[in-house]
Amino acid sequence: MTIPSSADRILNDVLRTRIMSAEQAAELIPAGATVGMSGFTAAGAPKAVPQALARRIERINAQGGQFRIGLWTGASTSPELDGALAKVHGIDRRLPYQSDPVARQQINAGEMNYIDLHLSHVAQYVWFGFLGHLDVAVVEVSGILPDGRLIPSTSVGNNKTWLDQADAIILEVNAGQPAALDGMHDIYYGTDRPPNRKPIPMLHPHDRIGEPYLRCDLNKVIAVVPTHAADKLSAYKPLDEDSQRIAAHIVDFLEHEVQHGRLPRNLLPLQSGVGNIANAVLAGLNQSAFEDMTAYTEVLQDGMLDLLESGKLRSASATALALSPEGFKRFEARADELRQRILLRPQEISNHPELIRRMGLIAMNALIEADIYGNVNSTHLMGTSIMNGIGGSGDYARNAYLSIFMSPSTAKGGQISCIVPMASHVDHTEHDVQVLVTEQGLADLRGLAPRQRAKLIIAKCVHPSYRDPISDYFERALKGSVGQQTPHLLTEALSWHQRYLDTGSMRPAASPAA
Amino acid sequence: MTIPSSADRILNDVLRTRIMSAEQAAELIPAGATVGMSGFTAAGAPKAVPQALARRIERINAQGGQFRIGLWTGASTSPELDGALAKVHGIDRRLPYQSDPVARQQINAGEMNYIDLHLSHVAQYVWFGFLGHLDVAVVEVSGILPDGRLIPSTSVGNNKTWLDQADAIILEVNAGQPAALDGMHDIYYGTDRPPNRKPIPMLHPHDRIGEPYLRCDLNKVIAVVPTHAADKLSAYKPLDEDSQRIAAHIVDFLEHEVQHGRLPRNLLPLQSGVGNIANAVLAGLNQSAFEDMTAYTEVLQDGMLDLLESGKLRSASATALALSPEGFKRFEARADELRQRILLRPQEISNHPELIRRMGLIAMNALIEADIYGNVNSTHLMGTSIMNGIGGSGDYARNAYLSIFMSPSTAKGGQISCIVPMASHVDHTEHDVQVLVTEQGLADLRGLAPRQRAKLIIAKCVHPSYRDPISDYFERALKGSVGQQTPHLLTEALSWHQRYLDTGSMRPAASPAA
Repeated sequence: MTIPSSADRILNDVLRTRIMSAEQAAELIPAGATVGMSGFTAAGAPKAVPQALARRIERINAQGGQFRIGLWTGASTSPELDGALAKVHGIDRRLPYQSDPVARQQINAGEMNYIDLHLSHVAQYVWFGFLGHLDVAVVEVSGILPDGRLIPSTSVGNNKTWLDQADAIILEVNAGQPAALDGMHDIYYGTDRPPNRKPIPMLHPHDRIGEPYLRCDLNKVIAVVPTHAADKLSAYKPLDEDSQRIAAHIVDFLEHEVQHGRLPRNLLPLQSGVGNIANAVLAGLNQSAFEDMTAYTEVLQDGMLDLLESGKLRSASATALALSPEGFKRFEARADELRQRILLRPQEISNHPELIRRMGLIAMNALIEADIYGNVNSTHLMGTSIMNGIGGSGDYARNAYLSIFMSPSTAKGGQISCIVPMASHVDHTEHDVQVLVTEQGLADLRGLAPRQRAKLIIAKCVHPSYRDPISDYFERALKGSVGQQTPHLLTEALSWHQRYLDTGSMRPAASPAA
Repeated sequence: MTIPSSADRILNDVLRTRIMSAEQAAELIPAGATVGMSGFTAAGAPKAVPQALARRIERINAQGGQFRIGLWTGASTSPELDGALAKVHGIDRRLPYQSDPVARQQINAGEMNYIDLHLSHVAQYVWFGFLGHLDVAVVEVSGILPDGRLIPSTSVGNNKTWLDQADAIILEVNAGQPAALDGMHDIYYGTDRPPNRKPIPMLHPHDRIGEPYLRCDLNKVIAVVPTHAADKLSAYKPLDEDSQRIAAHIVDFLEHEVQHGRLPRNLLPLQSGVGNIANAVLAGLNQSAFEDMTAYTEVLQDGMLDLLESGKLRSASATALALSPEGFKRFEARADELRQRILLRPQEISNHPELIRRMGLIAMNALIEADIYGNVNSTHLMGTSIMNGIGGSGDYARNAYLSIFMSPSTAKGGQISCIVPMASHVDHTEHDVQVLVTEQGLADLRGLAPRQRAKLIIAKCVHPSYRDPISDYFERALKGSVGQQTPHLLTEALSWHQRYLDTGSMRPAASPAA
C-alpha cells in the first residue's frame, strides 16, 4: 500500500510495515472486545478507527450480529468516537466519563452500562485487575520515533496504561497535530502497584518527573493508521453575565484570603473545570492584580491560554490541551515559547491525590445542584439521569487546599433552582465542599455546622425567586425535623425535583400544588 | 504545693514550677475560648482538667454566666471529657468527631454546633487558619523529659498541632500510663503548608519517619497537672453471630482476591474501623491462613492485639492504643516485645491520603445504611440526626486499594433495613464504595454500573424480610423512573425512613400504609 503524507511522522521501520487503513485496522477489533481509546475531551482522540469500527459494527449488526464493545477512555471524547459508536449502538459498557448526547440518551434509556469513576482511579484499577481485561488499545499519537517510542498527541489521559495493559495496539499517527507537541509531555513511569509504590517526586506544578515519550512494546502493535485531522473542539463562547458575576465573587474571595494571610500573593496552583464559568473565572483572574500564578489541572482551555499569553500564569500542567480552533492558532503562533511553560501528563498524575494535597490546589469545579447543607450533585439530573459524570472533581475537591463549587443559581430559564432542599444525588459530601458560589454571591462554609451552612447558602447563593420557598422549607424543617443536625422534612425533601418532573418547574404554585 | 506521685514523670525544672491542681488549671481557661484537647477515643484524653472545667462552667452559669467553649479533639473522647462538658451545656462548637450520648442529644436538639470533618483534614485546616484561632491546648502526656520534650500518651491524635498552634498549653501528666509507651511514638515534623510541602518519606506501615517525642514551647505552658488514671475504655464484647458471618464473607473474599492475583499472599496493610464487626473481622483473620500481615489504621483495639500476639500481624501503625482493661493488662505483660511492633503517629499521618494510596490499604469500615446503588451513609439516622460522624472513613475509603463497607443487614430488632432505596444522607458516594457486606453476603461492586450494582446488592446483602419490598421498589423504578442510570421514584425514595418515623418500622404494612 502507499504511505500517506504522515510518513515522516512514522520513523520506525517495523511499525512502517504495519501501516494500513482505518477500515483494515477496525477489522482487527473483535466483537465483545474491551477497547481502551485515547482522548481527554476531543483532544487527542483517535479520528479514523472509531468511525471505521462504527461502520463495521453497523454492517455486522444489520446482518443480525451482536457486535458491541466495552469502551474505556481518558474522559469525554468526540462525536467521531463516542458519538459514532453510540449511534450504531456499538457500546455495551462505558467508563470512566463521557459527555456525548447520543451516548447519554442511551445510558439514560438503560441501554448502555455506564460506570462513572474518579478519573485518578481508572489507571490503577486497570493495573489492579479490578475492571477486567483490556483487549485492544486505539491511541492517537503525533509521531513515532526511530526506536519506536511514541510522541503523544494533544492529550495523554490513560494512554500509558492502555499501551501497557492491552494485548494489541492500534496507533493513529496524526500528522495534523503540531510538531511543537514534541517535548511538551511528561510521562511518569515510576508508578507501581502496592506494596511497591514510592513517593511521586513532584514538588511544584512545573516539575518534570518523567519522559517526553510513551514507551510501546512494538510486538503488540497490530496496525498503524496515518491520519491528518484537527481535534474537533468547539469555538470559545463569549462570557455571559452570570459567569462573570461568579468569577468576580471568586476573585474577591481569593483577594480576601490573601489579605488575611491564608493564601500566598501569587495564590496556589489553580485547578479549573471546563466550560463557561471556568473560562470566566480565568478571565477574571487575568484582569486581577495576581501575578506569577501556576495551574495544575486536567484541561487547558482558551482561558488558560489567555493567562499564559498575558504572563499572569507562569506555567500550566494538564493532561489535555483542548483549545478552540482559534486558540490553537494562537498557540501555534507562539509555540516555541509557550511549549516551555506547558506540561502534559498522564491523568493519574494530573489528578493524583498525593500531588493535589501536597501542592495545595485551589480547586474550582461546576455543580449541577447543591443542597442547603452544601452537599453537591455533579452528575445527575433529577436524581436519575446522568448528565456527564464526576470526572476529576472528586480528586481535586477532596484533596485541595480550597474546594470551590460554582454554578448559576438557576437553570432552564429559571424553572430549576440549583440550590435545593436536598440534593437528589450526592457526589461531593458536606465534608468536601468549602465554598459555594452562584451569581448571587459566595458562601464560605469553612468551619460551619450544617444549620449555619444552610442560613449562609440561602442568604448568599439562592436566586431571589426561590429564596422564600427555600427559607420556608428550612424554617419548617427547623420545627418539624426529628433530628436538628441536618434538619429535613423527608416527605418534602425531594419534592422540588418531583414538581419539576410533574410541572416543568420547581417553583411552587401560588396555591400549593395538588 | 506538694508534688504528687507523678513527680518522677515531670523531669523539666521549669515545668515543675507550673504544677498545680486541675481546678487551678481550669481557672486559666476563659469563657468563649477554643480549646484543643487530646484524646482519640478515650485513649489519651485528659482525665482531670475537663471535669474541673465542667464544674467551673456549671458554677459560673448557675450564677447567670454564659460560659461555653469551642472544643476540638482528635476524635471521640470519654465521659469525663465530652460527657462532663456536655452535661453542663459547656460546649458551643464541637469538631471533628464525637460519640458521647449527652453531646449527641444536644447536637440533635440543635443546641450544639457540630462540624463533622474528615480526620485527616483537621490539623491542616487549623494551620491554614480555616477554623479560627486556637486559644488553649489541654493535652495528656505520659511524661516530660528534662529538656521539656513530651512523652506522648496512649494516643497522638492532633496533639502536635494543638501544642504548636495554641496560645497557651495545659499538660496533664498521667503517671498511670505505662512507662512502656516511651519510644512507641513517631511524631513527624516534616509537614508544612503549601507551597512548601514535600513527599512524606514513608514506604511501609512500620517505617519510622519522625521522633518519639512531642516538641513544646515551654513559655506557652501555663499549667502542669499530675494525674494517675486509666483510659476509660470498655470491656471487649463477645462476638455476635452476625459479625462473625460478616467476617467470614470478608475473609473468603480476600482469599479469592489472593487466588486471582489481585492481592499479595500476606495481603496489604489493614485498616479497620472500631466496634464489634471490626473485631470480628480481625478475629476471622486470626483464624485464617494469612501470615505476616501489617496494619495501618487509626485505632488499635483488642482484635489487633490478638493478631499481634499470635504473630499473624507483623506490625501495626495507628494514632491510638485503645485497649480494653483486660487487653491493656495483656499488652503490659508483653510490652517489651509488643512495643517494638507498634507505632503511634499523629492522625494527619495515620489518615493521610498520600500514604493510604501509596501503601494500598484494605479499608474496612462500618456503615449506618447503604442504598441499592452503593451510596453509603455513615453519619445520620433517618437523614437528620447525627450518630457519631464520618471520622477517618472517608480518608481511607477514597484512597484505599480496596474499600469495603460492612453492616448487619438490619437494625433495631429488624425494624430498620440497613439497605434502603435511597440513602437519607450520603458520606461515601457510589464512586468510593467497592465492596458491601452484610451477614447475608458480600457484593463486589467493582466495575459495575448502577443498575447492575442494585441487582447484586439486593441479591447478596438485603435481609430476606426486606428482599421483596426492595425488589418491588427497584422493579417499579426500572419502569417508572425518568432516568435509567440510577432509577428512582422520587416520591418513594425516602418513604422507608418516613415509615420508620411514623410507625417504628421500615416494613411495609400488609396493606399499603395511609
